[in-house]
Amino acid sequence: MINLGIVGGTGYTGVELLRLLAVHPEANVKVITSRSDAGTPVADMFPSLRDHYKELRFSEPDAEALAACDLVFFATPHGVAHALAADLLAAGTRVVDLSADFRLQDAAEWAKWYGQPHGAPELLPQAVYGLPEVTREKIQQARLIAVPGCYPTAVQLGLIPLLEKKLIATQGIIADCKSGVSGAGRSAKVGSLFCESAESMKAYSVGKHRHHPEITQGLSLAAAEPVGITFVPHLTPMIRGIHATLYVHLKPEQQQMSNAELQAVFEERYKDEPCVDVMPWESCPETRSVKGANICRLALHRPHGSDLLVVLAVIDNLVKGASGQAVQNMNIMFGLDESTGLKFAGLLP
Amino acid sequence: MINLGIVGGTGYTGVELLRLLAVHPEANVKVITSRSDAGTPVADMFPSLRDHYKELRFSEPDAEALAACDLVFFATPHGVAHALAADLLAAGTRVVDLSADFRLQDAAEWAKWYGQPHGAPELLPQAVYGLPEVTREKIQQARLIAVPGCYPTAVQLGLIPLLEKKLIATQGIIADCKSGVSGAGRSAKVGSLFCESAESMKAYSVGKHRHHPEITQGLSLAAAEPVGITFVPHLTPMIRGIHATLYVHLKPEQQQMSNAELQAVFEERYKDEPCVDVMPWESCPETRSVKGANICRLALHRPHGSDLLVVLAVIDNLVKGASGQAVQNMNIMFGLDESTGLKFAGLLP
Amino acid sequence: MINLGIVGGTGYTGVELLRLLAVHPEANVKVITSRSDAGTPVADMFPSLRDHYKELRFSEPDAEALAACDLVFFATPHGVAHALAADLLAAGTRVVDLSADFRLQDAAEWAKWYGQPHGAPELLPQAVYGLPEVTREKIQQARLIAVPGCYPTAVQLGLIPLLEKKLIATQGIIADCKSGVSGAGRSAKVGSLFCESAESMKAYSVGKHRHHPEITQGLSLAAAEPVGITFVPHLTPMIRGIHATLYVHLKPEQQQMSNAELQAVFEERYKDEPCVDVMPWESCPETRSVKGANICRLALHRPHGSDLLVVLAVIDNLVKGASGQAVQNMNIMFGLDESTGLKFAGLLP
Amino acid sequence: MINLGIVGGTGYTGVELLRLLAVHPEANVKVITSRSDAGTPVADMFPSLRDHYKELRFSEPDAEALAACDLVFFATPHGVAHALAADLLAAGTRVVDLSADFRLQDAAEWAKWYGQPHGAPELLPQAVYGLPEVTREKIQQARLIAVPGCYPTAVQLGLIPLLEKKLIATQGIIADCKSGVSGAGRSAKVGSLFCESAESMKAYSVGKHRHHPEITQGLSLAAAEPVGITFVPHLTPMIRGIHATLYVHLKPEQQQMSNAELQAVFEERYKDEPCVDVMPWESCPETRSVKGANICRLALHRPHGSDLLVVLAVIDNLVKGASGQAVQNMNIMFGLDESTGLKFAGLLP
Repeated sequence: MINLGIVGGTGYTGVELLRLLAVHPEANVKVITSRSDAGTPVADMFPSLRDHYKELRFSEPDAEALAACDLVFFATPHGVAHALAADLLAAGTRVVDLSADFRLQDAAEWAKWYGQPHGAPELLPQAVYGLPEVTREKIQQARLIAVPGCYPTAVQLGLIPLLEKKLIATQGIIADCKSGVSGAGRSAKVGSLFCESAESMKAYSVGKHRHHPEITQGLSLAAAEPVGITFVPHLTPMIRGIHATLYVHLKPEQQQMSNAELQAVFEERYKDEPCVDVMPWESCPETRSVKGANICRLALHRPHGSDLLVVLAVIDNLVKGASGQAVQNMNIMFGLDESTGLKFAGLLP
Repeated sequence: MINLGIVGGTGYTGVELLRLLAVHPEANVKVITSRSDAGTPVADMFPSLRDHYKELRFSEPDAEALAACDLVFFATPHGVAHALAADLLAAGTRVVDLSADFRLQDAAEWAKWYGQPHGAPELLPQAVYGLPEVTREKIQQARLIAVPGCYPTAVQLGLIPLLEKKLIATQGIIADCKSGVSGAGRSAKVGSLFCESAESMKAYSVGKHRHHPEITQGLSLAAAEPVGITFVPHLTPMIRGIHATLYVHLKPEQQQMSNAELQAVFEERYKDEPCVDVMPWESCPETRSVKGANICRLALHRPHGSDLLVVLAVIDNLVKGASGQAVQNMNIMFGLDESTGLKFAGLLP
Repeated sequence: MINLGIVGGTGYTGVELLRLLAVHPEANVKVITSRSDAGTPVADMFPSLRDHYKELRFSEPDAEALAACDLVFFATPHGVAHALAADLLAAGTRVVDLSADFRLQDAAEWAKWYGQPHGAPELLPQAVYGLPEVTREKIQQARLIAVPGCYPTAVQLGLIPLLEKKLIATQGIIADCKSGVSGAGRSAKVGSLFCESAESMKAYSVGKHRHHPEITQGLSLAAAEPVGITFVPHLTPMIRGIHATLYVHLKPEQQQMSNAELQAVFEERYKDEPCVDVMPWESCPETRSVKGANICRLALHRPHGSDLLVVLAVIDNLVKGASGQAVQNMNIMFGLDESTGLKFAGLLP
Repeated sequence: MINLGIVGGTGYTGVELLRLLAVHPEANVKVITSRSDAGTPVADMFPSLRDHYKELRFSEPDAEALAACDLVFFATPHGVAHALAADLLAAGTRVVDLSADFRLQDAAEWAKWYGQPHGAPELLPQAVYGLPEVTREKIQQARLIAVPGCYPTAVQLGLIPLLEKKLIATQGIIADCKSGVSGAGRSAKVGSLFCESAESMKAYSVGKHRHHPEITQGLSLAAAEPVGITFVPHLTPMIRGIHATLYVHLKPEQQQMSNAELQAVFEERYKDEPCVDVMPWESCPETRSVKGANICRLALHRPHGSDLLVVLAVIDNLVKGASGQAVQNMNIMFGLDESTGLKFAGLLP
């Protein structure tokens, strides 16, 4: 059994970790911290977990208790992992951080987007970006994982097959993304109220979302050159799910590629990936097909038979976009089958 | 491995069976039938299952193929199991029927509520009502199981502790129940459209719902005397979930019972039940706490300290109210741990 | 034109008042106050109103500016109207209070339920409970109106025809009520988040809701004797709407009444009421049929032909349950046609 | 009073017409036809209208009764208006067609997209495309109006200021559009069920939607040259609303335009338009801000300060995208103030 700690377990990525780990055959959650709710039994805050965590209580963060774990997940606002990761790593504890703290390799870029200095730039060299489909080998050896953001996961999985093979223009990409409201977290904000977000659709943070530099970093690495993308997120009246609609242009020299060849690029790229599903050409993946499941479904369209490709990618933002991917990373780090505890199907309907 | 057939797998109880059986360690779905969709791969109709059923296709009902299974689930409209069950049973195949065909022991009563003659009254003596919390011993020996309806599951689990101990008046019980829209099934009806059922609440079938006689039968058996209940179902704008609000009166001789004693009645009754959770006194269970989970959560209130008790019971109508309970029955019939493949927590949020 | 002030206009009853008054031919909103948002244009906070309030801004509460209005609406948390009403009334300004401050005639009862002393008991003698179907004559003369709560409006309109005629038992009434989330207001609370209240149903405040004494007061007045009721509210995943399911028992001497006679009691009682709609016997009113409309729809059922009647009542909690009723009161106070500005149909779908 | 007929009033555009006309001071609905529901009172099918249409019943289509109206609305599937319009026009009755029958000026193009021959090509010369912001003068004189589709209304209003002034590239435009489920109509289809469309997001008809040629026709007219656009519609879990996210490139010679100049282009273009609202630069319009209202809200973004503009446009698909726009056309045809009966604010929340 892997002894686990969770720092900041009262948000949606925290409770989702608890849900997934509750049925993971190798996981044993020993510690879960929350300053605001220390003392409260987990089962009281999340009655859905009453049958699985009868004894576990939120506790004050305690360095020693956390350091006694094999691995600690951070499900915290940004900045917290900066402050605590070094000591844990020094104690031999692995760290899987679901926040944005270690996602950007450039500390100055991080500081610009998050409006505060980077708190642990000295750890960046050992931080591994935990997108298993790209960095699996590094994850196996990693002590510190930065779990990708939800939008970046969907966008990168949708585009890297094309970028790695240099099939598309690296400038002028458009990512029109739609997210469920759980992406906004469990904090009490007017904009996340039922009556503010139900029965409505809106764009937000147009061109200014903090996932923008993470997306650019990942795509540029895949392309081995700078990638320019316009990223427009939209708030969608559903709890879970991200739908990325990606518009790209084939390079002039690739425009003779057939649809079948394009489809083959994706199928080949992901043929051994347990958590990516390439659907048949011109499919329209629904976010509900991955609700609660650790999978990204992709499909390709070429609406006018021209150089414009449309890639559709769906994930559950709390699973493949956060906590499921975190567990997938843990599995890889501990030499387990990568899908251990992650094999359930989407909750449809 | 248990070889399984499913008759009528294109509705919501069918796809839910497939979802649950996909990760059940002892289940092997060999055959799934659908007249209307014969030939279609299951994964095409339900992309959520693409990763789990790569080969399985819907097929025309074939008596031989079904009879070769160890157990056949019926996820069909009423009347179908009447027609097919006898041959399967004769061939030694167990039958677990999720429809209403064998729920009522009185064939004439069935005919009255369903508007057609009972198609297999000769099988009624061997039909076992599959509510494990009441009939577990019979289920172990059964060849033919009638899986309880969704409303009857919630109402019975909420009331039998009180009725078995003869603590409440057996007349004048009120069951005000709220169901998600999936209870109306996957058939194309105007009333089940998103735009007809979202952002609205209504009662329906007041005093006339077909689950009424099933509820009365079950409660009367528990009470060992005729029970009279008013059952008012409501359509609620959510996909899954039943919330039963049950109003009962303590008998005059029990009105001195303390709240703690009443709570103890429930805790004692269900203390060994893996799929019933008695919450603390005055809890308010949310349906989302059981979304996707095979559990019924209960809580007790005594709002004015008088003889009136309010029992709250929540289930997921497709899991503990249908397919999960069907699998629970299967587990019992085959001597497996009753919760095998049913241990996941509710999907919250 | 009637010059109007609104105190506390940033909540849902405030914006709903603005929506209704925007097309009211006699209304002129001069002042709208909000401490927290003083200076913000109304159209910036509520873009739905951009076309109607191009100049109006939230302002600091200013006694003089408010006193210069013909009528001031309070759309505030409880306690605020207590503090401000006396001065306005002294200045000759009429007050229509949408909060709970003047709903209970018994100041001690108010203090008990609201956990603080009543702030203006001296005004209670002149406060008129603004349910036009009951107190129309008093409203015509009133200077201070207490607009009924949402639940009390639905429950009272559903029961008073029976109580006034002394047809039903006055004890043991059950009101199982379901409310949309807007009833919880626009303040940032975790429980009102989309991801906490969508796709779920729960009871809350069982037997302890602050509308309980208001309901009891109104029903007892109608019955001319003390009425005992159990009131269980439920949170429903929709924005607007209240559905009251009311269970009552005919008195023994009335049990021979026919269904047609019972229906006639309601039709007769409300035959001249512009804002109450008695639907045909055994109808099932949907909350969406009154979405955005100032109407209460009622229907009667007698499920077992016995002494048990089920009354169904639906309103939009923000309209007939709050701001629409407030405007209806204003119309009456100023001698306008009672439905002025309130004639629109429900937004269906 | 204008005497009105409605052909095909049982769908969502039909009931929305009834809702709007119920409070229109000059409208008098004399006839409403439905083959399937002839004889049914309108108020029985749509209880939201009980207070407004106490006598009106659906009737069999009757040429004479319709011809006796001043104006007939068609709220029918395509093909119906083709068959009936000529006779009505000959009788002197004006026709406002909400279907697609007369939207495309090219009958062959129509036949290609709708899979059947155009049924009334001889009427095309007199058919006026009823987008008042573009064709107001023609509407004043028109006898036959083709009410624009919902997506085309949002996309055209978002782009014509730029195309008319030749500021943007006319090829490579992307329209990523999100629609509520009511756009799919009130017919009983599995895909429109609550349990199929709630809590999910998907693209559909990528590059193949029937609104594509209508959009292209309108934009090309505005640009006075052929326009090439990729249009990807998405099904969004809400009842009403369209959100168009439009990506366009400034022409090289316009790239020095400032943001203020771009904003001014829109404000100038729509400064006298009662049903278009240009929001401040970088606003994010929400569909709920126009729920139930006959208005299109627009906002502009230039996310990277480059040549890429993002235009956001929201409408209520049933109002400005269908029935409200139809009434707006009627108002213009009869010389009324264009906003008569259309002045209500959006239903928020």
